Amino acid sequence: MSKLSTATKRLLLGRPFRSDTLGHTLLPKRIALPVFASDALSSVAYAPEEIFLVLSVAGLSAYVFTPWIGVAVALVLAVVVASYRQNVHAYPSGGGDYEVATKNLGPTAGLTVGSALMVDYVLTVAVSISSAAANIGSAVPFVAHHKVLFAIAAIVLLTAVNLRGLREAGTAFAIPTYAFMIGMVVMLGWGLVRIFVFGDDVRAESAGFELVAEQSGLTAIAFVFLIARAFSSGCAALTGVEAISNGVPAFRKPKSRNAATTLLMLGGIAIVLLLGMILLANKVGVVIAEHPETQLRGAPDDYRQKTLVAQLAHAVFEGFPLGFVLITVVTALILVLAANTAFNGFPVLASVLAQDRYLPRQLHTRGDRLAFSNGILFLSGVAIVFVWAFDAEVTKLIQLYIVGVFVSFTLSQTGMIRHWTRHLASETDPEQRRRMQRSRIVNTIGLAMTASVLVIVLVTKFAAGAWIAIVAMVAIFGVMKAIHRHYDSVAEELENTEWDGVLPSRTHSIVLVSKLHMPTLRALAYARATRPDTLEAVTVNVDDADTRMLVREWERSDITVPLKVVESPYREITRPVLEYVRRVRRDSPRDVVTVFIPEYVVGHWWEQILHNQSALRLKSRLLFQPGVMVTSVPWQLSSSAHAHAERLDSAPGSVRRGFEEER
Amino acid sequence: MSKLSTATKRLLLGRPFRSDTLGHTLLPKRIALPVFASDALSSVAYAPEEIFLVLSVAGLSAYVFTPWIGVAVALVLAVVVASYRQNVHAYPSGGGDYEVATKNLGPTAGLTVGSALMVDYVLTVAVSISSAAANIGSAVPFVAHHKVLFAIAAIVLLTAVNLRGLREAGTAFAIPTYAFMIGMVVMLGWGLVRIFVFGDDVRAESAGFELVAEQSGLTAIAFVFLIARAFSSGCAALTGVEAISNGVPAFRKPKSRNAATTLLMLGGIAIVLLLGMILLANKVGVVIAEHPETQLRGAPDDYRQKTLVAQLAHAVFEGFPLGFVLITVVTALILVLAANTAFNGFPVLASVLAQDRYLPRQLHTRGDRLAFSNGILFLSGVAIVFVWAFDAEVTKLIQLYIVGVFVSFTLSQTGMIRHWTRHLASETDPEQRRRMQRSRIVNTIGLAMTASVLVIVLVTKFAAGAWIAIVAMVAIFGVMKAIHRHYDSVAEELENTEWDGVLPSRTHSIVLVSKLHMPTLRALAYARATRPDTLEAVTVNVDDADTRMLVREWERSDITVPLKVVESPYREITRPVLEYVRRVRRDSPRDVVTVFIPEYVVGHWWEQILHNQSALRLKSRLLFQPGVMVTSVPWQLSSSAHAHAERLDSAPGSVRRGFEEER
Repeated sequence: MSKLSTATKRLLLGRPFRSDTLGHTLLPKRIALPVFASDALSSVAYAPEEIFLVLSVAGLSAYVFTPWIGVAVALVLAVVVASYRQNVHAYPSGGGDYEVATKNLGPTAGLTVGSALMVDYVLTVAVSISSAAANIGSAVPFVAHHKVLFAIAAIVLLTAVNLRGLREAGTAFAIPTYAFMIGMVVMLGWGLVRIFVFGDDVRAESAGFELVAEQSGLTAIAFVFLIARAFSSGCAALTGVEAISNGVPAFRKPKSRNAATTLLMLGGIAIVLLLGMILLANKVGVVIAEHPETQLRGAPDDYRQKTLVAQLAHAVFEGFPLGFVLITVVTALILVLAANTAFNGFPVLASVLAQDRYLPRQLHTRGDRLAFSNGILFLSGVAIVFVWAFDAEVTKLIQLYIVGVFVSFTLSQTGMIRHWTRHLASETDPEQRRRMQRSRIVNTIGLAMTASVLVIVLVTKFAAGAWIAIVAMVAIFGVMKAIHRHYDSVAEELENTEWDGVLPSRTHSIVLVSKLHMPTLRALAYARATRPDTLEAVTVNVDDADTRMLVREWERSDITVPLKVVESPYREITRPVLEYVRRVRRDSPRDVVTVFIPEYVVGHWWEQILHNQSALRLKSRLLFQPGVMVTSVPWQLSSSAHAHAERLDSAPGSVRRGFEEER
Repeated sequence: MSKLSTATKRLLLGRPFRSDTLGHTLLPKRIALPVFASDALSSVAYAPEEIFLVLSVAGLSAYVFTPWIGVAVALVLAVVVASYRQNVHAYPSGGGDYEVATKNLGPTAGLTVGSALMVDYVLTVAVSISSAAANIGSAVPFVAHHKVLFAIAAIVLLTAVNLRGLREAGTAFAIPTYAFMIGMVVMLGWGLVRIFVFGDDVRAESAGFELVAEQSGLTAIAFVFLIARAFSSGCAALTGVEAISNGVPAFRKPKSRNAATTLLMLGGIAIVLLLGMILLANKVGVVIAEHPETQLRGAPDDYRQKTLVAQLAHAVFEGFPLGFVLITVVTALILVLAANTAFNGFPVLASVLAQDRYLPRQLHTRGDRLAFSNGILFLSGVAIVFVWAFDAEVTKLIQLYIVGVFVSFTLSQTGMIRHWTRHLASETDPEQRRRMQRSRIVNTIGLAMTASVLVIVLVTKFAAGAWIAIVAMVAIFGVMKAIHRHYDSVAEELENTEWDGVLPSRTHSIVLVSKLHMPTLRALAYARATRPDTLEAVTVNVDDADTRMLVREWERSDITVPLKVVESPYREITRPVLEYVRRVRRDSPRDVVTVFIPEYVVGHWWEQILHNQSALRLKSRLLFQPGVMVTSVPWQLSSSAHAHAERLDSAPGSVRRGFEEER
């Protein structure tokens, strides 16, 4: 009875739209922050380190620029956050940058954003997991020695968990993000208190190492280039900031305001952590090199360079190893969580792109587990290739990472300026106009900033790997464009097709028979129930003895439907049936032919191999015949009960789109 | 008009059996010999060599036994040929050993023969191609250095050719076999004439090498064991002899007599070549070692051991290099041809086994290209694994090879004895009885001989690799048994199922709609043509905007069929439709529900990915619902014309079963 009522609830007869809405678990800010912030906050784990690493090439003296680069990155971050606060107010539907670009700059810009984001999701997985491996490796030497293997295993595990269906929400997902935030704040706070309040001499294990400059005596231009490259790498801290603009519908009301507030919180925390880490790193004298084997002098022989986070934790929690372990664990956890966001964001993006027919239609219905599984396998497969090709080295992978993000930022900001300009043209309320003009200024600053960074990133990283990301983006763009063109041409073909719409004059039914058993009898009964004008049974003579027996049985039975035997000189089934059907069509072209195929329904894939193979082949070939319908009359064998009912899992990315159902 | 008449010819309306037979190209003996003999004759290329190789372990003095072992193998060959001449007379249907064992010893014996033959086909490919590689390698050092790669490439090529469809018949296939026979006779004849008539001093290049015995001072028992092992390897010459007994229907009338005569010719030629090679090898002083690197002394540093055939050709045609090249080429060709027979024999065997429901039913219809392709891929895949695992070394592979053949020989002879005993019980004509008694004696000698050889083979080769073949046979036996049991249980289930056979009281038709376009309109028209009691259109609300538009269009159109909207909280299609159908069934369980699904028919596989995915999924799920029929209403897009019509190739193995059609 309860099943019936559910079915009734889900069904709407007569009225085309249901008025009652399903109860969605909309996210309060305290849960929305961890769901959307893990990606952006986790980048704090590697962005400051990359700044130090790039500058290490010019020797220890270059470290003096790290605070300034940190401030520059923080400034960009602040501007981007301010810009996206405009986005979430203007586009609360959750379409994100793709929607902004498409609506204001046209489909090509939108598709560019889509391609950039797809590449980005792959790299989010690769970079986050590689960084997680490096951080765990800082505590566990075994992992450091098998970093690539460990990273790939982690991606495989994450894939398996997501294929099984992982609900992204709730406290289980919030804890690691808060733990990371708290852990980092405690570490930075305690470290700075020890230094500035207690006057402790907090020293990193690498403090005092000599750093051999790989490029000494740089020209001014080369040095500026190096600074710009360090800044580019530091901008990795901005990845993931746009996530909230895709998730506005998941927020509680007032959605846009709550999203904007969460964005502000996210930005504030990220900036504090970023600057705090750079400050502390300088204070405790961390020396970190791009090529530790050759660049570090004065280090012990068995020295293995730890990540910046690990070195800071080690120094701050000296004599309290649990603190070091905890920081390592929460850092690794949030990085894995960040990788997991890609597994949730990717299907959402694919769904939006599929709706606009840039990807196969079935990706649109995110409830479709098979399409979702294919997407996840694609995502993790490509991520594994990247991790493997770049030795799970964050420093190498990050060269590819930031291009896509800033392509998307830049196009989105351009779109927002257009958006405000368009609205200003029709808006008359001075209060509203003032607000719009202010927003336009914010977005213009955002555009100037993100476009500059994009240029800097392209110039400093193109040869180092960014070209790979660009090639991938162009390839994805091309494929999606081709898919769109295909759908368009099909739609056009359907529009221009002439069909008189006249009902077929007669229906001619053919029941395929191989044996005289229950499935055949029922197929005959069902076929008769459709009241065709003519009805006949047809069998293919593959084996003389079998056919002779069938004919005898048929004659002895009380079946009134005539049985025809079609010869098969090559002992096959498909072609003789096709030729027979073609002949019937030729004799009466205005009629419609229905071919009834009795089928066994079985519960295991290996049983499927043992049954229905000929029926399947025949069906797919018959569909090529105009004016022919193919009807499967199933006969459920007892094993069909083994087939599991489809699981009622939530769709991937539901939480971040606000589609989650109360249960 | 010609197409129509062909269709008419192929069709039989009313009369269940066509009386006119298709013109088969039955094989005259001169073509039948090469078609069936290539496998058996090609083994002459490696069997004598293996005798020498095994004995080489005990040093050069052991070579003195080679003629005696040769005579023993020839004797076994003669007895087996004589036995199989009884088989072809008693079982002219072409069922071969499988039929003989099944009819006389029961299905388990038959299935054992079937398993043994399947393993044998794989090894025929592996051994023949490895031997071909070794022979070509004797002339072309490059091939010798990359033997495994070359052998695998050859199997891949052979697979590709067979997948494309290779007609096994005609002079193109006869030439290599005759060329091999003539080439070998010329080589042996000319060599023996030179030695015995002209008194030339014909010397092999390896003549005079010192052969280091790996096992010197063998005990008598060990020495007997070695002799037995050499004999076992020599018995590889018998592989393929049974082929003719599977091909009796392909012979011209009188079939059995012609097949028996061809068998006699085959046996005679094989014995002559075998003994001739052993004699010549001894005369020209060939020294051939199992481990040439360690066993040969006095050989030049860059010496590479050639095959026995190559060494003989080299010695006999000294000063006439073309002769050496020609012998190498024809030897390689017949070996490749022998491998190819496996590609033709395997589908025939699979078809026979499938008819008795030991393999998936669709393998029975050999015209089925897909099943055939899967069989070929399976065969070549496993053969490649064997070649790779055993380094394409004939000496290693041959340890696995002979078990299956002799299992099949032994069971077949046992079956034949039972056959004659049974017939003797009812036969009264003294002439016939005498003949039967004689046949029974022949088969009894055959059984004694083959059983003894089987025991010798098992004892001498079990540890050397025969156990692998036995494990494979047991595994195949188990799988086929399981398949048979499955089909039996399904048949039993169908027999015991009660169904009242009453016509469904009403038909309820549902047309699935996603858009209002031509395919939908036609599906509606077709559905209406089946005159259902109720007809409705159903759409799943995946996207509110799309659905709203569809409903508006529907209301504006002149369609009288009501449109129902089914809600989909998870934005998927399958489950809401399933639940709707279930509900309709629940409301009226006696009715039958027909679900009409409009489908696009496209011409390329990648278009298939872009269309119909949801329809496919839905169809397969709907089949699990009792009382539901699924009807596909195809709409052929213009690209569907790209799909190639199925090619009218002959079925694999047709020639050897006598099914080939005149064209």
